[in-house]
Amino acid sequence: MSARKAELTREAARLFAERGYHGTSMDALAQALGVQKGSLYSLTGSKQELLYATMRDGADAFHAALDAVPEDAPAVERVRLALRGHLRVVSEQIDVATVFTREWRYLDGEHREEILAERRRYEERWRALFSEGLEKGGLRTDLDVAAAALLVLSAANWAYTWLTPDRDTDELADRFTAILVDGIRGYATPR
Amino acid sequence: MSARKAELTREAARLFAERGYHGTSMDALAQALGVQKGSLYSLTGSKQELLYATMRDGADAFHAALDAVPEDAPAVERVRLALRGHLRVVSEQIDVATVFTREWRYLDGEHREEILAERRRYEERWRALFSEGLEKGGLRTDLDVAAAALLVLSAANWAYTWLTPDRDTDELADRFTAILVDGIRGYATPR
Repeated sequence: MSARKAELTREAARLFAERGYHGTSMDALAQALGVQKGSLYSLTGSKQELLYATMRDGADAFHAALDAVPEDAPAVERVRLALRGHLRVVSEQIDVATVFTREWRYLDGEHREEILAERRRYEERWRALFSEGLEKGGLRTDLDVAAAALLVLSAANWAYTWLTPDRDTDELADRFTAILVDGIRGYATPR
Repeated sequence: MSARKAELTREAARLFAERGYHGTSMDALAQALGVQKGSLYSLTGSKQELLYATMRDGADAFHAALDAVPEDAPAVERVRLALRGHLRVVSEQIDVATVFTREWRYLDGEHREEILAERRRYEERWRALFSEGLEKGGLRTDLDVAAAALLVLSAANWAYTWLTPDRDTDELADRFTAILVDGIRGYATPR
Protein backbone atom coordinates (compact mmCIF):
# COMPACT_ATOMS: atom_id res chain seq x y z
CA MET A 1 0.00 0.00 0.00
CA SER A 2 1.36 3.43 -0.91
CA ALA A 3 2.02 5.94 1.88
CA ARG A 4 -0.79 8.10 0.50
CA LYS A 5 -3.27 5.21 0.44
CA ALA A 6 -2.21 4.27 3.98
CA GLU A 7 -2.84 7.84 5.11
CA LEU A 8 -6.28 7.87 3.48
CA THR A 9 -7.13 4.54 5.07
CA ARG A 10 -6.08 5.81 8.50
CA GLU A 11 -8.29 8.87 8.14
CA ALA A 12 -11.19 6.75 6.88
CA ALA A 13 -10.79 4.45 9.88
CA ARG A 14 -10.99 7.45 12.19
CA LEU A 15 -14.24 8.63 10.61
CA PHE A 16 -15.77 5.14 10.44
CA ALA A 17 -14.94 4.65 14.13
CA GLU A 18 -16.42 8.03 15.07
CA ARG A 19 -19.54 8.09 12.91
CA GLY A 20 -19.98 4.51 11.73
CA TYR A 21 -19.63 3.34 8.14
CA HIS A 22 -23.09 4.47 7.10
CA GLY A 23 -22.67 7.77 8.93
CA THR A 24 -19.54 8.61 6.90
CA SER A 25 -20.09 10.00 3.40
CA MET A 26 -17.45 10.21 0.67
CA ASP A 27 -18.04 13.99 0.90
CA ALA A 28 -17.04 13.96 4.57
CA LEU A 29 -14.00 11.79 3.79
CA ALA A 30 -12.89 14.06 0.96
CA GLN A 31 -13.31 17.10 3.19
CA ALA A 32 -11.38 15.52 6.10
CA LEU A 33 -8.57 14.60 3.73
CA GLY A 34 -8.52 17.89 1.89
CA VAL A 35 -8.96 16.28 -1.52
CA GLN A 36 -11.61 16.55 -4.23
CA LYS A 37 -14.26 13.85 -4.12
CA GLY A 38 -13.28 12.75 -7.65
CA SER A 39 -9.64 12.34 -6.58
CA LEU A 40 -10.74 10.33 -3.56
CA TYR A 41 -12.50 7.81 -5.80
CA SER A 42 -9.48 7.48 -8.08
CA LEU A 43 -7.11 7.20 -5.09
CA THR A 44 -9.11 4.72 -3.02
CA GLY A 45 -11.72 3.13 -5.28
CA SER A 46 -14.79 3.41 -3.07
CA LYS A 47 -16.01 3.65 0.50
CA GLN A 48 -16.21 -0.18 0.49
CA GLU A 49 -12.53 -0.33 -0.50
CA LEU A 50 -11.62 1.94 2.40
CA LEU A 51 -13.66 -0.18 4.79
CA TYR A 52 -11.97 -3.32 3.49
CA ALA A 53 -8.48 -1.78 3.78
CA THR A 54 -9.26 -0.87 7.41
CA MET A 55 -10.54 -4.37 8.16
CA ARG A 56 -7.45 -5.89 6.52
CA ASP A 57 -5.22 -3.74 8.77
CA GLY A 58 -7.22 -4.91 11.78
CA ALA A 59 -7.04 -8.59 10.88
CA ASP A 60 -3.28 -8.35 10.26
CA ALA A 61 -2.63 -6.53 13.55
CA PHE A 62 -4.63 -8.98 15.70
CA HIS A 63 -3.06 -12.04 14.06
CA ALA A 64 0.43 -10.56 14.38
CA ALA A 65 -0.19 -10.05 18.09
CA LEU A 66 -1.03 -13.75 18.49
CA ASP A 67 1.98 -14.75 16.35
CA ALA A 68 4.20 -13.14 18.99
CA VAL A 69 2.97 -15.50 21.76
CA PRO A 70 5.69 -18.17 22.32
CA GLU A 71 4.52 -21.69 21.49
CA ASP A 72 6.45 -23.24 24.35
CA ALA A 73 5.36 -20.95 27.21
CA PRO A 74 3.13 -22.40 29.95
CA ALA A 75 -0.60 -22.26 29.12
CA VAL A 76 -1.52 -19.59 31.65
CA GLU A 77 1.39 -17.45 30.47
CA ARG A 78 0.29 -17.80 26.84
CA VAL A 79 -3.21 -16.59 27.72
CA ARG A 80 -1.72 -13.63 29.56
CA LEU A 81 0.52 -12.69 26.62
CA ALA A 82 -2.27 -13.14 24.08
CA LEU A 83 -4.50 -10.83 26.11
CA ARG A 84 -1.68 -8.27 26.40
CA GLY A 85 -1.22 -8.42 22.64
CA HIS A 86 -4.91 -7.98 21.87
CA LEU A 87 -5.35 -5.05 24.25
CA ARG A 88 -2.21 -3.40 22.90
CA VAL A 89 -3.61 -3.51 19.35
CA VAL A 90 -6.88 -2.01 20.59
CA SER A 91 -5.05 0.75 22.45
CA GLU A 92 -2.48 1.59 19.78
CA GLN A 93 -4.85 1.32 16.82
CA ILE A 94 -8.15 2.20 18.44
CA ASP A 95 -9.84 3.33 15.19
CA VAL A 96 -8.84 0.23 13.26
CA ALA A 97 -9.80 -2.00 16.19
CA THR A 98 -13.17 -0.28 16.55
CA VAL A 99 -13.99 -0.65 12.87
CA PHE A 100 -12.73 -4.26 12.78
CA THR A 101 -14.83 -5.14 15.80
CA ARG A 102 -18.00 -3.19 15.04
CA GLU A 103 -18.33 -2.30 11.37
CA TRP A 104 -17.45 -5.58 9.60
CA ARG A 105 -21.16 -6.20 9.02
CA TYR A 106 -21.22 -3.43 6.42
CA LEU A 107 -18.68 -5.14 4.16
CA ASP A 108 -20.09 -6.68 0.98
CA GLY A 109 -19.33 -9.68 -1.17
CA GLU A 110 -15.97 -11.44 -1.24
CA HIS A 111 -14.31 -8.96 1.07
CA ARG A 112 -16.94 -9.71 3.67
CA GLU A 113 -16.31 -13.46 3.34
CA GLU A 114 -12.56 -12.93 3.61
CA ILE A 115 -12.79 -10.80 6.75
CA LEU A 116 -15.36 -13.10 8.39
CA ALA A 117 -12.95 -15.98 7.74
CA GLU A 118 -10.14 -13.99 9.40
CA ARG A 119 -12.33 -13.31 12.42
CA ARG A 120 -13.23 -17.01 12.70
CA ARG A 121 -9.57 -17.99 12.37
CA TYR A 122 -8.66 -15.55 15.15
CA GLU A 123 -11.34 -17.06 17.42
CA GLU A 124 -10.09 -20.55 16.60
CA ARG A 125 -6.53 -19.57 17.50
CA TRP A 126 -7.79 -18.39 20.89
CA ARG A 127 -9.62 -21.66 21.47
CA ALA A 128 -6.39 -23.48 20.53
CA LEU A 129 -4.54 -21.59 23.28
CA PHE A 130 -6.86 -23.23 25.78
CA SER A 131 -7.14 -26.67 24.18
CA GLU A 132 -3.35 -26.95 23.81
CA GLY A 133 -3.00 -25.88 27.43
CA LEU A 134 -5.33 -28.68 28.41
CA GLU A 135 -3.30 -31.23 26.45
CA LYS A 136 0.10 -30.08 27.68
CA GLY A 137 -1.07 -29.48 31.23
CA GLY A 138 -1.30 -26.33 33.28
CA LEU A 139 -5.05 -25.84 32.94
CA ARG A 140 -7.73 -27.54 35.01
CA THR A 141 -8.62 -30.83 33.41
CA ASP A 142 -12.36 -30.14 33.55
CA LEU A 143 -11.96 -26.75 31.82
CA ASP A 144 -14.74 -25.78 29.41
CA VAL A 145 -12.47 -24.64 26.55
CA ALA A 146 -15.19 -23.07 24.41
CA ALA A 147 -16.63 -21.06 27.30
CA ALA A 148 -13.18 -19.97 28.49
CA ALA A 149 -12.14 -18.76 25.03
CA LEU A 150 -15.48 -17.00 24.55
CA LEU A 151 -15.22 -15.29 27.93
CA VAL A 152 -11.70 -13.96 27.39
CA LEU A 153 -12.17 -12.99 23.77
CA SER A 154 -15.46 -11.25 24.58
CA ALA A 155 -13.76 -9.13 27.21
CA ALA A 156 -10.91 -8.42 24.79
CA ASN A 157 -13.27 -7.47 21.96
CA TRP A 158 -15.39 -5.24 24.13
CA ALA A 159 -12.30 -3.25 25.11
CA TYR A 160 -12.60 -0.92 22.12
CA THR A 161 -15.59 0.69 23.87
CA TRP A 162 -13.77 1.71 27.05
CA LEU A 163 -10.02 1.49 26.55
CA THR A 164 -8.36 4.91 26.64
CA PRO A 165 -4.80 5.69 25.47
CA ASP A 166 -3.65 6.46 29.02
CA ARG A 167 -4.37 2.91 30.25
CA ASP A 168 -1.43 0.57 30.74
CA THR A 169 -2.75 -2.34 28.70
CA ASP A 170 -0.13 -4.82 29.91
CA GLU A 171 -1.09 -4.15 33.51
CA LEU A 172 -4.79 -4.42 32.63
CA ALA A 173 -4.27 -7.71 30.79
CA ASP A 174 -2.42 -9.02 33.84
CA ARG A 175 -5.30 -7.99 36.12
CA PHE A 176 -7.82 -9.80 33.91
CA THR A 177 -5.56 -12.83 33.75
CA ALA A 178 -5.16 -12.93 37.52
CA ILE A 179 -8.94 -13.22 37.86
CA LEU A 180 -9.23 -15.78 35.09
CA VAL A 181 -6.43 -17.92 36.43
CA ASP A 182 -7.46 -18.28 40.06
CA GLY A 183 -11.09 -17.18 40.02
CA ILE A 184 -13.06 -14.92 42.31
CA ARG A 185 -14.12 -17.30 45.05
CA GLY A 186 -12.67 -16.95 48.52
CA TYR A 187 -11.73 -20.02 50.56
CA ALA A 188 -11.45 -20.32 54.28
CA THR A 189 -9.34 -23.44 53.84
CA PRO A 190 -7.29 -24.80 50.95
CA ARG A 191 -9.24 -26.84 48.44
CA MET B 1 -46.50 3.84 25.44
CA SER B 2 -49.42 2.92 23.15
CA ALA B 3 -49.49 -0.52 21.54
CA ARG B 4 -48.98 1.11 18.15
CA LYS B 5 -45.97 3.13 19.34
CA ALA B 6 -44.55 -0.02 20.95
CA GLU B 7 -44.93 -1.89 17.67
CA LEU B 8 -43.22 0.90 15.74
CA THR B 9 -40.39 0.99 18.27
CA ARG B 10 -39.93 -2.77 17.99
CA GLU B 11 -39.69 -2.58 14.22
CA ALA B 12 -37.31 0.39 14.42
CA ALA B 13 -35.10 -1.58 16.83
CA ARG B 14 -34.98 -4.44 14.35
CA LEU B 15 -33.85 -2.15 11.53
CA PHE B 16 -31.36 -0.22 13.71
CA ALA B 17 -29.87 -3.55 14.83
CA GLU B 18 -29.65 -4.85 11.28
CA ARG B 19 -28.46 -1.75 9.42
CA GLY B 20 -27.27 0.62 12.14
CA TYR B 21 -28.92 3.90 13.07
CA HIS B 22 -27.31 5.84 10.23
CA GLY B 23 -28.03 3.04 7.78
CA THR B 24 -31.77 3.21 8.53
CA SER B 25 -33.74 5.94 6.78
CA MET B 26 -37.23 7.11 7.74
CA ASP B 27 -38.22 5.94 4.24
CA ALA B 28 -37.04 2.41 5.07
CA LEU B 29 -38.85 2.53 8.42
CA ALA B 30 -42.08 3.76 6.82
CA GLN B 31 -41.83 1.01 4.22
CA ALA B 32 -41.12 -1.72 6.77
CA LEU B 33 -44.08 -0.57 8.83
CA GLY B 34 -46.42 -0.11 5.90
CA VAL B 35 -47.22 3.52 6.78
CA GLN B 36 -46.73 6.80 4.97
CA LYS B 37 -43.58 8.69 5.92
CA GLY B 38 -45.69 11.64 7.08
CA SER B 39 -47.73 9.38 9.38
CA LEU B 40 -44.50 7.92 10.78
CA TYR B 41 -43.32 11.37 11.85
CA SER B 42 -46.64 12.17 13.50
CA LEU B 43 -46.76 8.75 15.21
CA THR B 44 -43.18 8.63 16.45
CA GLY B 45 -41.73 12.14 16.27
CA SER B 46 -38.39 11.43 14.63
CA LYS B 47 -35.72 8.81 14.10
CA GLN B 48 -34.01 10.16 17.23
CA GLU B 49 -37.23 9.54 19.20
CA LEU B 50 -37.34 5.96 17.96
CA LEU B 51 -33.69 5.45 18.90
CA TYR B 52 -34.35 6.89 22.33
CA ALA B 53 -37.45 4.70 22.85
CA THR B 54 -35.37 1.64 21.95
CA MET B 55 -32.58 2.68 24.32
CA ARG B 56 -35.12 3.30 27.09
CA ASP B 57 -36.51 -0.24 26.59
CA GLY B 58 -32.96 -1.61 26.80
CA ALA B 59 -32.06 0.29 29.96
CA ASP B 60 -35.30 -0.80 31.64
CA ALA B 61 -34.83 -4.46 30.68
CA PHE B 62 -31.22 -4.67 31.90
CA HIS B 63 -31.99 -2.91 35.19
CA ALA B 64 -35.06 -5.11 35.76
CA ALA B 65 -32.88 -8.17 35.30
CA LEU B 66 -30.52 -6.96 38.06
CA ASP B 67 -33.48 -6.04 40.30
CA ALA B 68 -34.43 -9.73 40.27
CA VAL B 69 -31.11 -10.80 41.87
CA PRO B 70 -31.77 -11.52 45.58
CA GLU B 71 -29.88 -9.19 47.93
CA ASP B 72 -29.20 -11.91 50.45
CA ALA B 73 -27.84 -14.64 48.17
CA PRO B 74 -24.13 -15.58 48.46
CA ALA B 75 -21.82 -13.39 46.36
CA VAL B 76 -20.93 -16.05 43.79
CA GLU B 77 -24.59 -16.93 43.37
CA ARG B 78 -25.52 -13.28 42.83
CA VAL B 79 -22.93 -12.99 40.05
CA ARG B 80 -24.31 -16.13 38.45
CA LEU B 81 -27.90 -14.87 38.59
CA ALA B 82 -26.94 -11.41 37.32
CA LEU B 83 -25.17 -12.97 34.36
CA ARG B 84 -28.17 -15.21 33.67
CA GLY B 85 -30.41 -12.15 33.75
CA HIS B 86 -28.23 -10.14 31.40
CA LEU B 87 -27.85 -12.94 28.84
CA ARG B 88 -31.60 -13.62 28.97
CA VAL B 89 -32.33 -9.99 28.06
CA VAL B 90 -29.85 -10.19 25.18
CA SER B 91 -31.39 -13.42 23.92
CA GLU B 92 -35.06 -12.48 24.34
CA GLN B 93 -34.69 -8.90 23.11
CA ILE B 94 -31.73 -9.21 20.77
CA ASP B 95 -32.60 -6.13 18.69
CA VAL B 96 -33.10 -3.88 21.70
CA ALA B 97 -29.93 -5.24 23.33
CA THR B 98 -27.92 -4.72 20.14
CA VAL B 99 -29.07 -1.13 19.76
CA PHE B 100 -28.58 -0.40 23.47
CA THR B 101 -25.07 -1.82 23.36
CA ARG B 102 -23.88 -0.52 20.02
CA GLU B 103 -25.91 2.47 18.80
CA TRP B 104 -26.14 4.69 21.91
CA ARG B 105 -23.41 6.90 20.46
CA TYR B 106 -25.84 8.23 17.88
CA LEU B 107 -28.22 9.67 20.47
CA ASP B 108 -28.18 13.44 20.79
CA GLY B 109 -28.63 15.95 23.59
CA GLU B 110 -30.50 15.21 26.82
CA HIS B 111 -31.55 11.74 25.74
CA ARG B 112 -27.92 10.85 25.23
CA GLU B 113 -27.03 12.11 28.72
CA GLU B 114 -29.92 10.16 30.22
CA ILE B 115 -28.99 6.89 28.53
CA LEU B 116 -25.28 7.30 29.29
CA ALA B 117 -26.24 7.79 32.94
CA GLU B 118 -28.31 4.58 32.83
CA ARG B 119 -25.37 2.70 31.35
CA ARG B 120 -23.03 4.05 34.05
CA ARG B 121 -25.56 3.13 36.75
CA TYR B 122 -25.79 -0.39 35.36
CA GLU B 123 -21.99 -0.74 35.45
CA GLU B 124 -21.93 0.59 39.00
CA ARG B 125 -24.52 -1.96 40.09
CA TRP B 126 -22.30 -4.73 38.68
CA ARG B 127 -19.29 -3.40 40.56
CA ALA B 128 -21.45 -3.32 43.71
CA LEU B 129 -22.19 -7.05 43.28
CA PHE B 130 -18.48 -7.69 43.67
CA SER B 131 -17.69 -5.09 46.32
CA GLU B 132 -20.63 -6.22 48.49
CA GLY B 133 -19.43 -9.80 48.04
CA LEU B 134 -16.01 -8.76 49.31
CA GLU B 135 -17.53 -7.09 52.38
CA LYS B 136 -19.91 -9.89 53.25
CA GLY B 137 -17.42 -12.65 52.40
CA GLY B 138 -17.47 -15.33 49.77
CA LEU B 139 -15.03 -13.67 47.37
CA ARG B 140 -11.26 -13.77 47.61
CA THR B 141 -10.07 -10.95 49.84
CA ASP B 142 -7.48 -9.75 47.31
CA LEU B 143 -10.06 -9.55 44.49
CA ASP B 144 -9.65 -6.68 42.03
CA VAL B 145 -13.30 -5.56 42.02
CA ALA B 146 -13.01 -3.13 39.12
CA ALA B 147 -11.26 -5.66 36.88
CA ALA B 148 -13.68 -8.46 37.83
CA ALA B 149 -16.73 -6.32 37.06
CA LEU B 150 -15.21 -5.12 33.80
CA LEU B 151 -14.34 -8.66 32.74
CA VAL B 152 -17.81 -10.08 33.39
CA LEU B 153 -19.74 -7.14 32.03
CA SER B 154 -17.56 -7.04 28.90
CA ALA B 155 -18.33 -10.67 28.19
CA ALA B 156 -22.03 -10.01 28.87
CA ASN B 157 -22.11 -6.95 26.63
CA TRP B 158 -20.32 -8.66 23.78
CA ALA B 159 -22.95 -11.41 23.78
CA TYR B 160 -25.22 -9.50 21.40
CA THR B 161 -22.72 -10.31 18.62
CA TRP B 162 -22.86 -14.08 18.93
CA LEU B 163 -25.85 -15.13 21.02
CA THR B 164 -28.45 -17.00 18.99
CA PRO B 165 -32.04 -17.72 20.07
CA ASP B 166 -31.37 -21.47 20.29
CA ARG B 167 -28.72 -21.07 23.03
CA ASP B 168 -29.72 -21.91 26.59
CA THR B 169 -28.62 -18.69 28.22
CA ASP B 170 -28.93 -19.97 31.78
CA GLU B 171 -26.62 -22.86 31.01
CA LEU B 172 -24.19 -20.52 29.26
CA ALA B 173 -24.18 -18.08 32.18
CA ASP B 174 -23.45 -21.00 34.49
CA ARG B 175 -20.53 -22.11 32.31
CA PHE B 176 -19.05 -18.60 32.37
CA THR B 177 -19.59 -18.40 36.11
CA ALA B 178 -17.89 -21.74 36.70
CA ILE B 179 -14.75 -20.38 35.01
CA LEU B 180 -14.93 -17.07 36.83
CA VAL B 181 -15.46 -18.65 40.20
CA ASP B 182 -12.65 -21.19 40.24
CA GLY B 183 -10.38 -20.04 37.42
CA ILE B 184 -8.64 -21.92 34.64
CA ARG B 185 -5.45 -23.04 36.35
CA GLY B 186 -4.88 -26.70 37.09
CA TYR B 187 -3.31 -27.75 40.38
CA ALA B 188 -1.44 -30.92 41.12
CA THR B 189 -1.96 -30.31 44.84
CA PRO B 190 -4.46 -28.22 46.81
CA ARG B 191 -3.51 -24.58 47.25
